[in-house]
Amino acid sequence: MDNLNDEEIYNDRNRIEPFVKAITRNKHLFKDKIVLDLNSGMGLLSILASQSGAKQVIAMKANNYASEIIKQNNIQNITLYKEKIREVELNCKIDIIIADWMGNMLIYGGCIQDVIYARDKYLNKDGFIMPDKGQLYIQSIEDSQYKKMKINFWDSVYGVNMKWMKQWIAKEPLLESIKEEQLNSDEQLIYEINLQNCQLEDLSFSNQYQIKIKRQDYATGIIVWMKYSFTYTHLPIHVIMGPTKSPFWKPVILYFREEIPVNKGDKLQGSLAVKFESEELLQIKLSVHMQQYNYVSYFKLN
Amino acid sequence: MDNLNDEEIYNDRNRIEPFVKAITRNKHLFKDKIVLDLNSGMGLLSILASQSGAKQVIAMKANNYASEIIKQNNIQNITLYKEKIREVELNCKIDIIIADWMGNMLIYGGCIQDVIYARDKYLNKDGFIMPDKGQLYIQSIEDSQYKKMKINFWDSVYGVNMKWMKQWIAKEPLLESIKEEQLNSDEQLIYEINLQNCQLEDLSFSNQYQIKIKRQDYATGIIVWMKYSFTYTHLPIHVIMGPTKSPFWKPVILYFREEIPVNKGDKLQGSLAVKFESEELLQIKLSVHMQQYNYVSYFKLN
Repeated sequence: MDNLNDEEIYNDRNRIEPFVKAITRNKHLFKDKIVLDLNSGMGLLSILASQSGAKQVIAMKANNYASEIIKQNNIQNITLYKEKIREVELNCKIDIIIADWMGNMLIYGGCIQDVIYARDKYLNKDGFIMPDKGQLYIQSIEDSQYKKMKINFWDSVYGVNMKWMKQWIAKEPLLESIKEEQLNSDEQLIYEINLQNCQLEDLSFSNQYQIKIKRQDYATGIIVWMKYSFTYTHLPIHVIMGPTKSPFWKPVILYFREEIPVNKGDKLQGSLAVKFESEELLQIKLSVHMQQYNYVSYFKLN
Repeated sequence: MDNLNDEEIYNDRNRIEPFVKAITRNKHLFKDKIVLDLNSGMGLLSILASQSGAKQVIAMKANNYASEIIKQNNIQNITLYKEKIREVELNCKIDIIIADWMGNMLIYGGCIQDVIYARDKYLNKDGFIMPDKGQLYIQSIEDSQYKKMKINFWDSVYGVNMKWMKQWIAKEPLLESIKEEQLNSDEQLIYEINLQNCQLEDLSFSNQYQIKIKRQDYATGIIVWMKYSFTYTHLPIHVIMGPTKSPFWKPVILYFREEIPVNKGDKLQGSLAVKFESEELLQIKLSVHMQQYNYVSYFKLN
């Protein structure tokens, strides 16, 4: 039998409620439509789509419980597949794709590739994806105490010298939330993706930033956090996985090589480049420059 | 590169410190011995074994950092393998096997099978394993509020009837700690394993229990928790992964089919059977009887 941790997913309201709202409060979108649910699990979203008026729902990656749950809800128009979308051949076009495609930093560990595949192969010209847009924002942070603790840990691990690890630790992005008071700049949009027309190559990018420092402080690094949106709904639904809460997808912290002393009004400039190589690997290049500080650092998300 | 979450493991003091103590405070055991470290990672325990006087250390499942860390600690007598023990052929006998073999309920998800394999193939007659013994204990608990919440959740998941799931949820063991005040019986040893001489078939068992109720209450189910011990050390080291803390390996909660009203001094009898089928699957059979209550329940750890 399948693992029952769907309950945990359903309990993760930050993650599931926007989908529920996008479906149940937008019945006008679903009326007589053909819907593809890319990761149906127990079938919750497929059932809600059917109840919202869909003519047919095609549910991929269904688990062993889905069939009986659908039966008990007296629903006849859901076609269940245990397979992933690439493993089957559908014989119809789709009006709406529902997909929980997001991962860390929007694209890492998610299934955006499957959405692009399904869209190009099956989506009708006036069809749409839920959610259809994603953004990454960056801000600078002061995090020296935690950084030091994290790095100095390796000086002596139960008496064993593991200093050599320090260089790697500094190159490892952290997946962690921070405290509000650690943010010391404004936020800036650094990347945006539109699922309706993006291509695989759009998952790699290199974009400039210029963030404005809010107070006299040190900038230890930057934090990258995400938003995603359902914009085809009657009222757009924006989901913010911000820098300070601990939502399902944690923000990513990238440290500069040195702490940079900054003053209110300073502008920290640089670029953030992400190379999306496969489902397994993400390479990140972060540059920063300000007065005499001019670094380029490389990170890998493992 | 490897994932750096070894730091988290090293920070999990409940788990790593007993190993560190068993090695560094028992140098008399390691002097001139050949040591096999079954899961060496960055090499911490291998290095400690070498520093404690081992003649040679064979370190399996080493990660990419281990080699450099060992070099920086000026250690010459550790032989690193990235492979697992079954994937290589060693050309010597072993005196001490160090293995973090435990999993949930001692055996689930751990690597006890690899220890048995290595022991039978390589361990000298007077050699020993660290840790060498494990025990499971059971106690009855009152947990009706949480059980109800957990079960009733499925009545309506965002408006969708998922009642059908309830039967499965009740058969799913929970991996969770409880509060001290929820324990309503004494504790009883239900299973013991000695790594020095156990066989694979000993991982399946069916043992009787009789636990004594401490107060007027309801018994909602039982909790199974574990101890493991290093008994070859100068002072034996006992590690208790008890029912109330949240240690690395959580205790397992198995619910009875009904709540059983109990009084102080009552004896709750039954049996607990575990069938260890493969690394992937553990079947658990729990029987309980007391006056008119007489149930047998089956569980599966997924």
